[in-house]
Amino acid sequence: MNILYDENVDGVLPRVDKQQLLSALEADMPDLTVLSRHEDLRPYECDGLSAYRTVPLLVLLPERIEQVESILRICHRLQVPVVARGSGTGLSGGALPLEQGVLLVMSRFNRILEINAQGRYARVEPGVRNLAISQAAAPLNLYYAPDPSSQIACSIGGNVAENAGGVHCLKYGLTVHNLLQVEILTVEGERLTLGAESLDCPGFDLLALFTGSEGMLGVVTQVTVKLLPKPQVAKVLLAAFDSVEKAGTAVGSIIAAGIIPGGLEMMDNLAIRAAEDFIHAGYPVDAAAILLCELDGVESDVHDDCTRVRQILIEAGATEVLLAQDEAQRVRFWAGRKNAFPAVGRLSPDYYCMDGTIPRRALPGVLKRIAELSSEYGLRVANVFHAGDGNMHPLILFDANTPGELERAEQLGGRILELCVAVGGSITGEHGVGREKINQMCAQFNADELTAFHAIKAAFDPSGLLNPGKNIPTLHRCAEFGAMHVHNGQLPFPELERF
Amino acid sequence: MNILYDENVDGVLPRVDKQQLLSALEADMPDLTVLSRHEDLRPYECDGLSAYRTVPLLVLLPERIEQVESILRICHRLQVPVVARGSGTGLSGGALPLEQGVLLVMSRFNRILEINAQGRYARVEPGVRNLAISQAAAPLNLYYAPDPSSQIACSIGGNVAENAGGVHCLKYGLTVHNLLQVEILTVEGERLTLGAESLDCPGFDLLALFTGSEGMLGVVTQVTVKLLPKPQVAKVLLAAFDSVEKAGTAVGSIIAAGIIPGGLEMMDNLAIRAAEDFIHAGYPVDAAAILLCELDGVESDVHDDCTRVRQILIEAGATEVLLAQDEAQRVRFWAGRKNAFPAVGRLSPDYYCMDGTIPRRALPGVLKRIAELSSEYGLRVANVFHAGDGNMHPLILFDANTPGELERAEQLGGRILELCVAVGGSITGEHGVGREKINQMCAQFNADELTAFHAIKAAFDPSGLLNPGKNIPTLHRCAEFGAMHVHNGQLPFPELERF
Repeated sequence: MNILYDENVDGVLPRVDKQQLLSALEADMPDLTVLSRHEDLRPYECDGLSAYRTVPLLVLLPERIEQVESILRICHRLQVPVVARGSGTGLSGGALPLEQGVLLVMSRFNRILEINAQGRYARVEPGVRNLAISQAAAPLNLYYAPDPSSQIACSIGGNVAENAGGVHCLKYGLTVHNLLQVEILTVEGERLTLGAESLDCPGFDLLALFTGSEGMLGVVTQVTVKLLPKPQVAKVLLAAFDSVEKAGTAVGSIIAAGIIPGGLEMMDNLAIRAAEDFIHAGYPVDAAAILLCELDGVESDVHDDCTRVRQILIEAGATEVLLAQDEAQRVRFWAGRKNAFPAVGRLSPDYYCMDGTIPRRALPGVLKRIAELSSEYGLRVANVFHAGDGNMHPLILFDANTPGELERAEQLGGRILELCVAVGGSITGEHGVGREKINQMCAQFNADELTAFHAIKAAFDPSGLLNPGKNIPTLHRCAEFGAMHVHNGQLPFPELERF
Repeated sequence: MNILYDENVDGVLPRVDKQQLLSALEADMPDLTVLSRHEDLRPYECDGLSAYRTVPLLVLLPERIEQVESILRICHRLQVPVVARGSGTGLSGGALPLEQGVLLVMSRFNRILEINAQGRYARVEPGVRNLAISQAAAPLNLYYAPDPSSQIACSIGGNVAENAGGVHCLKYGLTVHNLLQVEILTVEGERLTLGAESLDCPGFDLLALFTGSEGMLGVVTQVTVKLLPKPQVAKVLLAAFDSVEKAGTAVGSIIAAGIIPGGLEMMDNLAIRAAEDFIHAGYPVDAAAILLCELDGVESDVHDDCTRVRQILIEAGATEVLLAQDEAQRVRFWAGRKNAFPAVGRLSPDYYCMDGTIPRRALPGVLKRIAELSSEYGLRVANVFHAGDGNMHPLILFDANTPGELERAEQLGGRILELCVAVGGSITGEHGVGREKINQMCAQFNADELTAFHAIKAAFDPSGLLNPGKNIPTLHRCAEFGAMHVHNGQLPFPELERF
């Protein structure tokens, strides 16, 4: 099939007539907030992945859905690319602007429209912050489960676009598992309702297709999320190990025993020391790795599971197992984990956060191989991650002011992601592909699979105006990326032989 | 956009050269089992919805994936439509054959390839029966959660195609929530892997898109399902009510209290009497409605929830609440429910099983309206359904030998489904659209939404060879269906005014 858009954005996308666009917007919506001066645009040049920066042509800040419709219609008529953005906390450059495109900022849509206890849902505008939903539902003893680290700031529209995860995904699922209905506008400004208030919906599952589509299929205008009853009790166990492999093995054993923890997180020594130094969480700083295992539910159930998990941890070789004695200690244990990224940030001028998934059984081997790659590239790697669902976040430490270090960090990151694919995992767990991992998509999918993605994209957006250059690489790019690998004299997956 | 296929199958699809097709199949696969004599084809003329019957052109029974690839390539080259089928237990005519098409029967692919405790999954061929997966996983104390009533017979490939549900969907989700990975063949015979062994997978969510696509996007060749640990304990409460509305209200109250039962089922008086007469389950035959509420999990949790649910049921006006005293009584309570369809079948020469969903809050009103419609059409309706997730199964009793009764039953069924849509629900909960409910899709979706479905279909199967005439109506058909309504002097949704 024909590829109808190309991700080599700035080289290929045609130049936009900025004056014509401004006039069209002004004529249609005199009250629309439009930013066009360089100093006003500058704060929008990147999202949470600041390694990539592009100042957009214009920033638009609509306040009514009708304005979003008009913006999309005008951009479609003038063939202007559109990048939608919420709070801009994404970590893969999914909301990276285009030099020749508008940035459509949805943050002013921040109203909670309905909280319904009997239907167990919340209906909200896309700019509502993730945590604000749980706060609004708290008086009914309900909450919204997916909890990305950025939950104080990130918006639900962005969560839908990126299929955001979080510490509790292992038990409660990703964003896609916690949605009932999403309203979107197509590239032509048509309103579509995806999903239903009920459990199932006939026709193709466009709600799931749209979730995680990274702004390539439409713009989110309303979201209905499922709410869950708050667990009665949550307890946290902290286990120390003298090797990361043993900690990795323990993770598999807990799951294989039929226990589904609310959260099951791992940190290695570098991350432990950084977090302890920053937060004073009470972590054992000499451990090679720690596991944090949260068990939630009703009192007696949690009590039983704590006993079973403790036993499994000891059998797996834990040198120490601590149960948080009260809520203050539980919060402190988690604070170390939740602040691990900024804590590691204090160790090094820059760090590069990876986000790959692997089957749990591959955990010990992959951690060993990452340590080897770390030595090979001469860059420290801290591991902090959602071990229970095999979602790894290796943090590669580097100094962008040292010539060549950024490139080395990117290469090492690429090797780690390819390692994830080689053992049967994937190149992103919850951060998305965005601009950052577009080359690694070539390692993840074959030409037939990529062609299917392009066909889906073309079905929704044939001229490729929505967020071009993200998420799905062209076959041309993959051919080039593959060639690069051969050029370096390496097989695409040298790691495959090891597993 | 252009509609690239048409569901007016036998009127529009071109005549197939049967001899040419047979020769091509024979030349390529001399050992393929091909049925072509009328008496051999006859048993395949329908699936579980026997009101629609068509003898297929040919039945093919491949045994190796390479054969399925070849069949698809040959049919694509000769432009022969293909309907894939598993066990044929579907209830919406999704596997109804075509006079001018082949029926591709996947039932010989019945091997369980892997059961993995640590990864908590089973990898199986598409012809494996739903229950066989749980049986194979039982020694590891694991099971596959979705349990359609046909689980003894239905195959997992069909479960994927229809996004099958069951009694336990309320707590454990539909098929789509219990899949990790599906391998498919496209209409051109290309192999695609959808999903990943890990929780998330980058790119568009083709796994969810494919699940429930009713054979229109590809043919399932392998399925990896999630396995869950078996609950320690399951208890069942039976509550009797003197009105169906009170029972409907109780359902909403249980959910609003933050309890998620393993199953929450309702039966009305006609269904209760039929089941009791057939199974002797111990149901109170004078009750207007009963609720069966199963609570599963760990012992103490289940005990607490039983106490809370009993209190809620009494407050909602239950005249009697029974707790199954032992496993034998629990099984007996469920046996009545699970055999309700055949039990109702004993009351009447024919019945028509509907499958709509509604928001739980609409339950009392919709039950009242169904009773009114039942009187209006002069046909008895028994209600047996998954009340907890608002998935209704009204059974319309009729006698096909009485002139006009089948048509009246179909009209009444259509009215009930439109009622479901009018209150914010949908025209199918778990049985699929298939051939049966294609007109009601026009009530469910607007032209823009149907256009999006057609674009997806065209992306996978531009010439519309896979299962044409099912699931997604053409805009032309919807225009005709809408016109029919106006012709009868009714608004499309007269019921809307009532809610």
